[in-house]
Formats: sequence, structure tokens, C-alpha cells
Amino acid sequence: MLEQTRIVLVNTTHPGNIGAVARAMKNMGLSDLCLVAPKLFPHPDAFARSSGAADLLESARVVETLDQALADCHLVVGTSARGRHIPWPLLNPRQMAAVATTLQPQSRLAVVFGREDRGLTNEELQLCHHHVHIPTNEAFSSLNVAAAVQVIAYELRMAVLDQDKAEAPQWGVSWDIDLAENRELELLFDHLEQTLVDIDFLDPDNPRQLMNRLRRMILRAVPDKVEVNVLRGILTKVERLAASRKPGGDDV
Amino acid sequence: MLEQTRIVLVNTTHPGNIGAVARAMKNMGLSDLCLVAPKLFPHPDAFARSSGAADLLESARVVETLDQALADCHLVVGTSARGRHIPWPLLNPRQMAAVATTLQPQSRLAVVFGREDRGLTNEELQLCHHHVHIPTNEAFSSLNVAAAVQVIAYELRMAVLDQDKAEAPQWGVSWDIDLAENRELELLFDHLEQTLVDIDFLDPDNPRQLMNRLRRMILRAVPDKVEVNVLRGILTKVERLAASRKPGGDDV
Repeated sequence: MLEQTRIVLVNTTHPGNIGAVARAMKNMGLSDLCLVAPKLFPHPDAFARSSGAADLLESARVVETLDQALADCHLVVGTSARGRHIPWPLLNPRQMAAVATTLQPQSRLAVVFGREDRGLTNEELQLCHHHVHIPTNEAFSSLNVAAAVQVIAYELRMAVLDQDKAEAPQWGVSWDIDLAENRELELLFDHLEQTLVDIDFLDPDNPRQLMNRLRRMILRAVPDKVEVNVLRGILTKVERLAASRKPGGDDV
Repeated sequence: MLEQTRIVLVNTTHPGNIGAVARAMKNMGLSDLCLVAPKLFPHPDAFARSSGAADLLESARVVETLDQALADCHLVVGTSARGRHIPWPLLNPRQMAAVATTLQPQSRLAVVFGREDRGLTNEELQLCHHHVHIPTNEAFSSLNVAAAVQVIAYELRMAVLDQDKAEAPQWGVSWDIDLAENRELELLFDHLEQTLVDIDFLDPDNPRQLMNRLRRMILRAVPDKVEVNVLRGILTKVERLAASRKPGGDDV
């Protein structure tokens, strides 16, 4: 799907922005860039800001009209501020990406971005199947065009990655060590409790919520086997220390 | 939640990027910007690229160390490329935003972004509870720092707008006690390290990964203030025990 997505920039004024768009696209795995009547292109500022995505600038197609840019596309989405005169099917970027994933594999999606200062005209927006609006602070709503491309491309990439995700664990399918089994954790808690009694921190006749608090905290971390071993190593050391003190009985 | 989120930029080289970050933040409704030892700031390029978000640049705090930037924060997330030496709880931006929505309203979230050319150091990443990775094209993975801030801020904003659909909270929407501040956690780690040296469990001349492992585990749990106090109470008890043994020197 990412290979089948075209980013279309209409009448971009600053070539630096075109370079930043190319970088954002390549970061997210997009490569099809089409420029409709850019003010200055090619331009050194575009290459400077592309920061290694010069290949996208070199393969970018420059056309005279938006119609030309969209001719071979199957779904066209225009970026829009809120409150346009004519209501249009309005998606947020995540909804747009969800729609994009339902396209047939050979279908081509175009996302169209307007001028830095005033976006797309109503005529241009009416060439689009859907509109997409990035939810912004209403008091400061004008996104840089490369920032807008970054968000859209990110959502498309997330949608592609989500399609084949099994519910992701919180930290790492590739955690380096096996997680501790529950029985190992229970042995750890027994060991911890005994040690706390040995050092007179826990009064077995009045335990209050101490073990519950420690348990809750350690369980929240979902420890791995090495971490459990390290903790038990510390407890063993502390127990020996307590035992070595016992004959003297000099509790400080 | 957006008001309680701090964006921390470490050693930023180009002031233009700081301006672009301010713009992205304000577009998404964030306002707390903290700069750790920026190369050039204030600078006209920052104001030029901020494009109307000069208020964020004017209120930005400049500090010397990352510790200072994080001292009053409760959850710290560092942006990271994949493949670090020590695995750490790794979230994608959407998962990170889902976790952020489960914080108590008064809790402060910090998201830390590294240098343009090489990101955060391992030491800096180990100051973080979680890491967040923006899923990029592996062949071209280095995002512009303002683009990265844009994605993170967008996900936080989407999560706020979309609270109903956020994933199940990680541990209770109504945690009963305030989370520990970062400075309290750092004092805990200092205390823990000293205690482990005192009981001869940690060799200061050959520390290996011991403190990193313990740190990673405890940070994963995102402890509250009472939990930190309980742990420090245990450490104090153990230290006294170690001190009471010292004269005899009878290490068992």
C-alpha cells in the first residue's frame, strides 16, 4: 500500500519544504512524489532539507495541473482545514489510513497538500473523494506542509504495520531474556518476606500492607528470569548479614 | 494531559529545528518546552521557523543537564532507534499515548528527543522509564527532530480527543497515591547502589550491568511515592545492619 501512495504538493512556495516532505516520505516508506507547478524546483534548498532522500526528489514528477497529478489514481484525499463552505466526507488521518487499507492492492491512493499560506482551493478540494483534517489546536491550526505529510505518512505506515500485528506485548517480542514464571515470582516474594522479617523491617504479627505494596510494584514490572535471580541474590546476601549479626544481637 | 506534557530536546544543533519543534507543539496544543544545553539559542532561525509559536520559544526553559529537565516529571519516555544494547520497555507512539492517558491528571510526562545526528546516548536512555520508537523505513530511519515531535504530539492529541477508544489502562485509572518524581527515583537509585556496595553485592570497580538491570526493572513499574519510601526504608535498615557488622568484619 505504501508503494501505491502518491503525495501531491500543489504550488509549493519554499523548496526547503519540498525537501522536508521527501525526507518524511522516505522515513515512512513512501516514494511517489508529484509536484504541481512548484515555485522553485529543482533547488539546492530542497536537496539540503531532504537529508538523504535526494532520490525521491530526483524521481519526483513535475506537472502543470492537479488533474495531471491525479489522472492514474483510484482514491484521492485532499488535506483540508475545518469549516469549508461545502461539507465533504471528512476523515481524520487514522480513519483515512483505515480506508486506504481497504483498497485493492493495485489501487493507487493520492493525498493532496496545498500551498503553505492558504492550502487548497475549493475547486481543488472538489477533485477529491474525501477530505482529511489533522486535528489541530484551533487557535494555531496551520501546520507546516512537511509536518502534515509526516503525520499522514505515519498513519499510513501504522495502518500497514497494524494489519499484520498480533496484539503487541508492552515491551518487546524481543525482550532478551524469558519472563519469570509465576512460581518463580512466588518464591521471590516468599524470600523477600522472610528477609524483611530477618532484618526486623516486617513485623509478622503486624504486617499491614507492606508485602502487598511490594508485590504490586514488582508484578507491575513483569520481571524476567535474570532480574528475579538478581533480586534473590541480593536477598541472600542480606540474610547472611542478618544471620552474622544475630549472635551479638546488636540491633542498631 | 497536553498541558502536563514536557518536550525535552537534548543538545540540539540547529536552532531552526527548535523553532519547528515549537510550531509542531503549539499546533498540537503542547506548550512546555525544555532545552538541554542547545548549541545556539535564542537564535533568529528558531523564531523564523516557529512561524507564530514564538511564545513557546520565549517561555522555553534552558537547562544544563537532562537531570534538571526531568526532576519534577513522573513518567519519562525517551525516543530511541531500535537495536540498543540493553532492551528497555519499548512502545510505539500510539501505545505511549495510551499509557499517558492513564496518568493521574497532575502527573507530568516528559518526552525526550536527542541530537540531530546521533539521538540520545545509552546513559540518557537509561534515565527513561520507557522508550518510544517511531516505526520507520529501516533503510532510512533518521527522522528530523521536529518531524518526530510532530508524530509524538499528534498521537498525544489523538489520545486526548479519543479517550474512549484508548487501550485498557496499564494499571488503574485511579491510582491511590501520587507517582514519585524523577528526582526521588534518582535518590532511590543512589541509595540502592550505595547499599549494594556496603553489603559487598556490588563491586564498584566492576559494576557490570547490575545497576542498569535494577534500574530498568524499577522504572518499568513507575513507582509511587509510598513505594519509593518503603524501598528506601528497607535500604536504610540494611545499611545499618552492614554498618553494625563492619567492626567485626565477619563477612559470612
